[in-house]
Amino acid sequence: MIKKTLNTVTGESHVYLGESFSEIEKYIPLERTIMVVDKEVMKLHGHTFPDVEVITIDAEESKKDLSTVEYVYERMMENEIDRDSFLIGVGGGITCDIAGFAASTYMRGISFALVPTTLLAQVDAAIGGKNGVNFKGYKNMIGNIEQPDLVLIDHSFLQTLPDEEIRTGMAEIIKAAVIGSSALFHQLELNKDEIMSLEPGYVDRVVRDAVDVKMRIVARDEFESGERRKLNFGHTFGHAVEKNYPITHGKAVALGMRISVDMSVERGSLHAEDGRRVKRLIDSYGFSEDVDLSTVFEAIKKDKKRSDDVVKFVLLNAIGSAEIVDIPLSEIEKVCLDDH
Amino acid sequence: MIKKTLNTVTGESHVYLGESFSEIEKYIPLERTIMVVDKEVMKLHGHTFPDVEVITIDAEESKKDLSTVEYVYERMMENEIDRDSFLIGVGGGITCDIAGFAASTYMRGISFALVPTTLLAQVDAAIGGKNGVNFKGYKNMIGNIEQPDLVLIDHSFLQTLPDEEIRTGMAEIIKAAVIGSSALFHQLELNKDEIMSLEPGYVDRVVRDAVDVKMRIVARDEFESGERRKLNFGHTFGHAVEKNYPITHGKAVALGMRISVDMSVERGSLHAEDGRRVKRLIDSYGFSEDVDLSTVFEAIKKDKKRSDDVVKFVLLNAIGSAEIVDIPLSEIEKVCLDDH
Repeated sequence: MIKKTLNTVTGESHVYLGESFSEIEKYIPLERTIMVVDKEVMKLHGHTFPDVEVITIDAEESKKDLSTVEYVYERMMENEIDRDSFLIGVGGGITCDIAGFAASTYMRGISFALVPTTLLAQVDAAIGGKNGVNFKGYKNMIGNIEQPDLVLIDHSFLQTLPDEEIRTGMAEIIKAAVIGSSALFHQLELNKDEIMSLEPGYVDRVVRDAVDVKMRIVARDEFESGERRKLNFGHTFGHAVEKNYPITHGKAVALGMRISVDMSVERGSLHAEDGRRVKRLIDSYGFSEDVDLSTVFEAIKKDKKRSDDVVKFVLLNAIGSAEIVDIPLSEIEKVCLDDH
Repeated sequence: MIKKTLNTVTGESHVYLGESFSEIEKYIPLERTIMVVDKEVMKLHGHTFPDVEVITIDAEESKKDLSTVEYVYERMMENEIDRDSFLIGVGGGITCDIAGFAASTYMRGISFALVPTTLLAQVDAAIGGKNGVNFKGYKNMIGNIEQPDLVLIDHSFLQTLPDEEIRTGMAEIIKAAVIGSSALFHQLELNKDEIMSLEPGYVDRVVRDAVDVKMRIVARDEFESGERRKLNFGHTFGHAVEKNYPITHGKAVALGMRISVDMSVERGSLHAEDGRRVKRLIDSYGFSEDVDLSTVFEAIKKDKKRSDDVVKFVLLNAIGSAEIVDIPLSEIEKVCLDDH
């Protein structure tokens, strides 16, 4: 088990990697605790969970909204949860986002822990304190940034995940490598088979390194006024693709990363050979989808990160190093009309 | 005009006292700004307001809930408010609480300013960053602590307030004096008539000193883990009285303060003569209500500040100095059954 601590202006967040959820009582006094658990996770793993009150939720994108948060509030009140209580969110990214928002706005905020059960949530949603829900069809429109007091990453949850979920998590791990860790990039190149088959000693190491990249960036820019935008690498295109095509988040982000690599090479910020190497890695993890980008451009124009007529875009300047660049919408339009 | 700056862990909050709202453009770029305004304030003062989009709300306790916050979110989206935008809340405490919560949870938080239009909000709700709404009949059950970037206190709003509203604000000013400023206490004793008739040079001075007491306490304990509870002086009883009797917040708090003074004297933490002096001041400002406290005890037991079977209670140890004491419910029950 490895413990890492994220220090931000709003407080400390302790991340325990490779710890079993059954050991949670070592860290949290369970007598005043309530859990918010994805209904599907409860079915698969509930029999192993500590004996505390559980609020189950439908962890679906269409139900990631204020009505679910209100349902959680109500159940918290029924269980006399007060300022000295603790909430534990157990599930994927949707569950983490809802649980974090409910906890951090109930009685102006109570302590909370996150136990991410998907690979994607372990390296992304559970780390960094972004909480929130969709509103009127807009993703994560309502929310806040409040760090969980504790994140417990138990690798055993990954064993029950569908392959496609593992692949989606891998897209974010690849992203972490290319924007922040050439060492992680090497591991991903060398040990693909061991990682994809979740071999102990391999998957935990890449999770740890990806978490490390995210924690370092969040520690420097908790409120996303600058560097934290690097974590959006591949996501400006990715989100726009997701809105237009029925493909997984992982595939959409992988596609967005490939386009961003091309842009980085075309603009001269990344060596062509490094660009080819990144795209080879992405493809080797099974991401080779292609879509018609001309339909994607309209969605990008509406992207919430838009500020006037330029888009804050993340480009690479080396493997393991990214920068944020203002790119005119017209240049992005050109990329969308070109062939990639 | 006087500028004070509150420094907290989550950022700086600038408070401008004695500034005219018509000067707001000196501090905020109005082209990307939206206002949330109490409908009644809009009727009285709207013609003098800057020319920006306005969301009017019914600033009533019964509508201080998530549905009003959702209404504000929707109107913000319709007006394409984004992360670079600014929200200004204009009204009393209810409006400040709703506007602050909406702004600090929209797109994970945008910048906001508060322009309190009641005496109570000028010395209390607008200062210190507590935002939120009621839920299922429980006051301020949902909310957060996020500082406004700017608070503008324009004394001219007080001229249109009913006397009863001025008196309610005075109860909080008296509270600030007894817990934190013997100098303010002296002013209140010496200049009652000038203050109550809102004479310039008098009312602005007591507002400034009361704001100062609150800012100093919040700066030391933003998240109410300790000293900030001193601001609850008189409120544990006050809230319980409000739940049981149809009297104003000011009268309820005044009554709560008188009981707390008696308890401070009985427990030996406050000299009897100082206790009499505080109660004389409270009475001189027209607060002399009495209620049957035996009906109030049940409400205190349910108070959200309860922790097990003791209540964190604020007592005085001198005029201008308070302390937080754990008092067993049994002792509070005794006080409620005694005659005060």
